[in-house]
Amino acid sequence: MSTPAPITHSFRPTAVGRARVGSIVTPRGTIETPEFMPVGTQATVKALTPGDLRAAGAQMILGNTYHLNLRPTAERIARLGGLHRFMGWDGPILTDSGGFQVFSLADLRRVDDDGVTFTSHLDGSTHRLTPERAMEIQALLGSDVAMAFDQLVDPGLPREQVADAMERTHRWAHRSLAAGGRPDQAVFGIVQGGVDPSLRRASVAAIGALAFDGIAIGGLSVGESKADMAAMLEVVADALGDDLRPRYLMGVGSPADFFTAVERGVDLFDCVLPTRVARTGQVWTDAGRLNLRNAALQDDPGPIDAGCACEACRNHSRAYLAHLFRARELLAYRLASVHNVTWTLGLMRRLRASLADGSFAALREGVVRAFGRDAAG
Amino acid sequence: MSTPAPITHSFRPTAVGRARVGSIVTPRGTIETPEFMPVGTQATVKALTPGDLRAAGAQMILGNTYHLNLRPTAERIARLGGLHRFMGWDGPILTDSGGFQVFSLADLRRVDDDGVTFTSHLDGSTHRLTPERAMEIQALLGSDVAMAFDQLVDPGLPREQVADAMERTHRWAHRSLAAGGRPDQAVFGIVQGGVDPSLRRASVAAIGALAFDGIAIGGLSVGESKADMAAMLEVVADALGDDLRPRYLMGVGSPADFFTAVERGVDLFDCVLPTRVARTGQVWTDAGRLNLRNAALQDDPGPIDAGCACEACRNHSRAYLAHLFRARELLAYRLASVHNVTWTLGLMRRLRASLADGSFAALREGVVRAFGRDAAG
Repeated sequence: MSTPAPITHSFRPTAVGRARVGSIVTPRGTIETPEFMPVGTQATVKALTPGDLRAAGAQMILGNTYHLNLRPTAERIARLGGLHRFMGWDGPILTDSGGFQVFSLADLRRVDDDGVTFTSHLDGSTHRLTPERAMEIQALLGSDVAMAFDQLVDPGLPREQVADAMERTHRWAHRSLAAGGRPDQAVFGIVQGGVDPSLRRASVAAIGALAFDGIAIGGLSVGESKADMAAMLEVVADALGDDLRPRYLMGVGSPADFFTAVERGVDLFDCVLPTRVARTGQVWTDAGRLNLRNAALQDDPGPIDAGCACEACRNHSRAYLAHLFRARELLAYRLASVHNVTWTLGLMRRLRASLADGSFAALREGVVRAFGRDAAG
Repeated sequence: MSTPAPITHSFRPTAVGRARVGSIVTPRGTIETPEFMPVGTQATVKALTPGDLRAAGAQMILGNTYHLNLRPTAERIARLGGLHRFMGWDGPILTDSGGFQVFSLADLRRVDDDGVTFTSHLDGSTHRLTPERAMEIQALLGSDVAMAFDQLVDPGLPREQVADAMERTHRWAHRSLAAGGRPDQAVFGIVQGGVDPSLRRASVAAIGALAFDGIAIGGLSVGESKADMAAMLEVVADALGDDLRPRYLMGVGSPADFFTAVERGVDLFDCVLPTRVARTGQVWTDAGRLNLRNAALQDDPGPIDAGCACEACRNHSRAYLAHLFRARELLAYRLASVHNVTWTLGLMRRLRASLADGSFAALREGVVRAFGRDAAG
């Protein structure tokens, strides 16, 4: 008896570069791709309920192993029935492995071949992540897709250090797969290699050869130029060739980046950007970024974006939002977040449609004109 | 041609003391009484949307003249179509007159017979409120019920000072009425007099004799004992006799207080307490107060209150809420606020039903057992 694949998928080529449209079928729902996953770092997409996420059109969300394991702990979430029940979201969830957050800790971590020892940003306590523990945590969380544990490094480091981290990532990929997740949990491997084409090719060869259910591209959108990001996506796409598995670009992104990556075969994205910038008052519209703290908006009776059907745009004016931000009202952060998540998921819906009807270039041109090609959000 | 009354009302006596059940009909909707009004100080009931308020069963909400006039200013709200459109709430709104907030400023205000000069808590700028300006602001806001401008004092001050402030309140009541509001705006007068029975009676005589559309009881729930509050409500109820106008107890309250006041003929309440304590993690249930920051709740899979149908209780566990509060997630404040407003409005619904079916004493007993008689929330 063979175990049924935890997820199935089907992708069709399009007339746009290597862009694909398709779907990923999980026991908790189907994700039409290309798609963006809102990030629920601490078991909540900040300020939003699961109902808000459904209304925004979210198909799949992301949870963070690093944060959830520190608080409330993976064991506690497991006792409470797993992450889906804990946060009240019954759709698909992907969990990262903690590699990125541990990388972000800078001086608070020490990497060895077996894993990483780090200091909690919450209370200074010492913790350890290994490939086996990262997989165990994700099994406890019960996500639909777990990520292999990887080592991310600054792509600006000397080639040897980038190569070392990549090689370690490959060894950890083997161990992550060997540790395995739950029977109903897919596992994605992560390609590293910085901004070095030959390392990226080597990483695709190593990770692609393993029995992962999907391939993630890690180590981008961490400070490299947009040109380097595009070049690496090109290299990875070439190296993956006609690999049929889902391709997930981690930590991206901003509106223009989606087009750059989709054209190079990427199916999935995640990023905190839409919600993070929303909390500062920056909202995204078809005309580009709008800062709700701008004095001029205090008298603007129009919605954030006339084409958007989110709760903020249906019921409230820019003037009202501008007031809420000035008054530091909690509703400001919520409505701006609702808008940015809705708008971003709407953009992905339009992007999928554009791949079918030949309007991809026009849609992209509008977004680049509104947001700029190199904008980081 | 006579102007139609901006609001109509009808109250029926009950078998419970002086308690009444009835309705207040405004052009924007009917309020079944007794009822509690959630407070939207800065044009938002903190953390909640108008949709949340509807879902919670809110019939009427309150806006604050003091805060709204400082930011975004009454003139700006008027330019944007009035407070209802500005905040997206199309139900009835009552605005206070700013008297209470100015009182709260303590050393930042100076009272003379014409009005009050005070320093903004936002930027230190100097402002002035008079009965005429308070009414003008409320006309600009476009509330359905405006409040006369009054002078509140600490009831613990010497009798002469309490009497002086009351006399000034009566002169300001005349001026508020003379200034008037919009044609479609009802105006309520405010009874003062501290905790002195003879002053309270004098105030009811003075305010009750004027052509106000409703009578508010001010200057309570500001530090006096629960016994003093009950005694003053008794005095006011006696003095009002069979006055048919709506009676509104300002700034109350906590669950047990509603019963004390309803029994003494009060129809309307407002208070920031349900939302303010929610943001500290205190939620109200049929079993009393629950602090969501309690360590024991981190493993509690049950809802805040099994009998509550709010979004927090339908979709989330105490354990999840406890996590959100520990993680200082914005969703914590929102869900706890949704719950407390829903629970409080549900209590008022049960209270109204209990006046009809004879179960008032039993309902009250349960609430007093759960919350204590003298609890301030």
